[in-house]
Amino acid sequence: MLESKLIRLKEDLELEKPTMIVGLPGVGLVGKLVAEHLVDELKAEKVMEVYSPHFPPQVLVNADCTVRPVSNSIYLGRANERDIIFLVGDHQSTTSPGHYELCSLYLDLAEELKVSRIYTLGGYPTGKLTYEETILGVTNSTDLIGELKGYGVEFRESEPSGGIVGASGLLVAFSLMRGIDAACLMGMTPGYMMDPKSAQFLLKMLCSILGIEVNTESLEKKAEEMENIVEKLKEKEEQQKIQEIKPSEEDLRYIG
Amino acid sequence: MLESKLIRLKEDLELEKPTMIVGLPGVGLVGKLVAEHLVDELKAEKVMEVYSPHFPPQVLVNADCTVRPVSNSIYLGRANERDIIFLVGDHQSTTSPGHYELCSLYLDLAEELKVSRIYTLGGYPTGKLTYEETILGVTNSTDLIGELKGYGVEFRESEPSGGIVGASGLLVAFSLMRGIDAACLMGMTPGYMMDPKSAQFLLKMLCSILGIEVNTESLEKKAEEMENIVEKLKEKEEQQKIQEIKPSEEDLRYIG
Amino acid sequence: MLESKLIRLKEDLELEKPTMIVGLPGVGLVGKLVAEHLVDELKAEKVMEVYSPHFPPQVLVNADCTVRPVSNSIYLGRANERDIIFLVGDHQSTTSPGHYELCSLYLDLAEELKVSRIYTLGGYPTGKLTYEETILGVTNSTDLIGELKGYGVEFRESEPSGGIVGASGLLVAFSLMRGIDAACLMGMTPGYMMDPKSAQFLLKMLCSILGIEVNTESLEKKAEEMENIVEKLKEKEEQQKIQEIKPSEEDLRYIG
Amino acid sequence: MLESKLIRLKEDLELEKPTMIVGLPGVGLVGKLVAEHLVDELKAEKVMEVYSPHFPPQVLVNADCTVRPVSNSIYLGRANERDIIFLVGDHQSTTSPGHYELCSLYLDLAEELKVSRIYTLGGYPTGKLTYEETILGVTNSTDLIGELKGYGVEFRESEPSGGIVGASGLLVAFSLMRGIDAACLMGMTPGYMMDPKSAQFLLKMLCSILGIEVNTESLEKKAEEMENIVEKLKEKEEQQKIQEIKPSEEDLRYIG
Repeated sequence: MLESKLIRLKEDLELEKPTMIVGLPGVGLVGKLVAEHLVDELKAEKVMEVYSPHFPPQVLVNADCTVRPVSNSIYLGRANERDIIFLVGDHQSTTSPGHYELCSLYLDLAEELKVSRIYTLGGYPTGKLTYEETILGVTNSTDLIGELKGYGVEFRESEPSGGIVGASGLLVAFSLMRGIDAACLMGMTPGYMMDPKSAQFLLKMLCSILGIEVNTESLEKKAEEMENIVEKLKEKEEQQKIQEIKPSEEDLRYIG
Repeated sequence: MLESKLIRLKEDLELEKPTMIVGLPGVGLVGKLVAEHLVDELKAEKVMEVYSPHFPPQVLVNADCTVRPVSNSIYLGRANERDIIFLVGDHQSTTSPGHYELCSLYLDLAEELKVSRIYTLGGYPTGKLTYEETILGVTNSTDLIGELKGYGVEFRESEPSGGIVGASGLLVAFSLMRGIDAACLMGMTPGYMMDPKSAQFLLKMLCSILGIEVNTESLEKKAEEMENIVEKLKEKEEQQKIQEIKPSEEDLRYIG
Repeated sequence: MLESKLIRLKEDLELEKPTMIVGLPGVGLVGKLVAEHLVDELKAEKVMEVYSPHFPPQVLVNADCTVRPVSNSIYLGRANERDIIFLVGDHQSTTSPGHYELCSLYLDLAEELKVSRIYTLGGYPTGKLTYEETILGVTNSTDLIGELKGYGVEFRESEPSGGIVGASGLLVAFSLMRGIDAACLMGMTPGYMMDPKSAQFLLKMLCSILGIEVNTESLEKKAEEMENIVEKLKEKEEQQKIQEIKPSEEDLRYIG
Repeated sequence: MLESKLIRLKEDLELEKPTMIVGLPGVGLVGKLVAEHLVDELKAEKVMEVYSPHFPPQVLVNADCTVRPVSNSIYLGRANERDIIFLVGDHQSTTSPGHYELCSLYLDLAEELKVSRIYTLGGYPTGKLTYEETILGVTNSTDLIGELKGYGVEFRESEPSGGIVGASGLLVAFSLMRGIDAACLMGMTPGYMMDPKSAQFLLKMLCSILGIEVNTESLEKKAEEMENIVEKLKEKEEQQKIQEIKPSEEDLRYIG
């Protein structure tokens, strides 16, 4: 395998202007959590697998002790009388050229399937342990901005200022040349841990945009568990701050 | 040389559903030790050499002062009325894409030679200086699990939890698409040194699966030598633990 | 996308022996600042875009919240009755092979457009916080040296002694085989920060060579701002030196 | 430029079983010093240049302020009624695959030019600041060993035990498949600095093997300069050893 490869598990998909939703691993795993939740809830069917020499040279072990190569997968779901294509996966490319190669492969596929809109999902690292419902957006054309603002997506001049690294950004930017409207939707997230809470906010926004409703119980549960962990982290942080002050007060008394 | 290359030392191999055994360098060199021991004991013949731009750009010096490029080799042996193909070698790929390229090359060969079963051999790092006879397995289809359990191979849900990196994993996972049954058999090993003891356990299991018997003397000798080294390492470890405790006891007495 | 790719925004450019000016990111951003200033002042038109798997796998966010892939761009301007082609961009290649690939692509284009002269612009790192008006030059043939000396470009034996890394050097060296005269012009710059002051000197030299005049106000303003920052850096440096001496003098008095 | 490229400066070289001498940068620059000295002394003519995307993306500046890309070069000389092809250069490949690619290119050329013998020249790192006249050899066939021993080349079982990294080793190993006899001759060298002294010993051996005599003055001069530097390094080393002992003796007296 010298190039990334698409394996079709089902031939002749006849779709009508489907929407493509991309949730690959990234900051806070926010995009991955949302896309995989939708795949589950919409009972989407796996129709393609993607293997690439740019993925880690690794296999993962299933619960039944069989192994599978690291891969990305294409699922096909249906909601609100619309076909939805999901791109999810274990890893993104480990090399720069690989990111570009995979992006081309996915946009070739999007063209073939006559995708009319792409939403890539990601996390926007805030560096802070606080919740924010804000969903930040960027697009590949100004036409989409008004529409998405209507749903509450926020657009901030030149933000993220450091750009967007990886598939979420490249797919939005390069889809322009294929004539496909695309936006990247980002949930706010601390950035250094899995964030199902942020995923919950992003899921809510995405469902509103797609005009669908899904059960969010499993994600809510994960979010609650994570909220407890974060609560404890915060308490610890507070205590450390207090302890950092206290001893120095004691030290002062010793001196005084 | 821009791609990995197979050099045939012998043309027109006519084999009947051979078994392929893969023992390339990996954790504890367990797989390599077992496969090379079998190559020696079965007097298998070298029939192919593999060179690759993804191996280190290095040559090795033979005892007679001639040099040879870093390579992988294919040997052909026969045991229990069965043809056995061995894949052994000096190195695995140094790059991610190289792992995928070499895996494709080996599976093309396996298809050509009508290989009906692949066993890749490896080590499972335990991080502990203790012996365990356990052989852990993963497969590319659930059909094989029952058969291998019959020989005593252990299967643990989703283990190894970190997946398997390198040829041993990739060959098992990708052989599924070629219609070849495959399993990876792993001996338990500390992980940070050559482990002929673990290789001995794995060899015993493999021979039982293949229905063959081989002289294991040379491997036993290596294992005994290593056992002595490990024994000394353990003693040292114990002494260090004792010394780590002692001073703190003395410290307590000083305070009391 | 497996190779660097040139997108033509405008077909059939009919140019007469144009000059090509290359200002890609490099030491002190000197070349980039000069070339982009000229693009603005000459109201040059973007005629091509270059994308490459060797650029970082990243998109940049425009002020209007649309994204664009990291790219290099070709602009076409006109001054002093001459067509001028500008090569500017966000990044250079992130890999060694990519540098060579992009260099070939740009020289293929230069040949196609019948470019008769190439000036690549760069910075020469001095490691010192002082201004120097000197513009250092290297060429791909001794014929150009006399001509450029006439404008005041300095040529120093075997300098830069460490060679030149990246597009500025490669384009000059390899254009020789295409029969295109080329020189690299370098402004003196500390090397560890953006240097619009050095860019100002280089711009002046380049305009003199091209026989054109342009408004330099915006660059002057940037240079003044930077000069203020440098002034403060220098003052700080001086104070540190003084403070480093003072305490040791006090120490001496304690001993004496 | 996506692949390494050979530029012919002179067409239709008609040679009769030439010898090829390879002196590329390596340990102590020993091989490079010897081969370039012979190119100078035999007034060999540059007949080809090699450029590669696997060389650093860098140009070097000539004394006359023109630049040239990093390259390897093929020179043609004649001595003792024999054609001699020299392969010398600024750099070796910066990537593993590049080493293999360039090795193929050079052996294709060797086949085309009907090269009958290849000597690659290198340094063998001893880690010690002492001179040794020993020249260590490895070959691609046992046939050559006797012949080279006759000239005084030393052959040590399985040495260098770490193998040989880079062009010197690969060219010897892979020339076997091209039916070309080849040996790598290595001078003993500390390993961490340019070593014209070791080059002098290796040159002497090579001249004896080729049955030629050359003026070695320039190399001797460089060797003398280096010898002085080494002498001073050794003195310093000795003094440091003495100083390391002395203070501890004083310390003892304080205690006693």
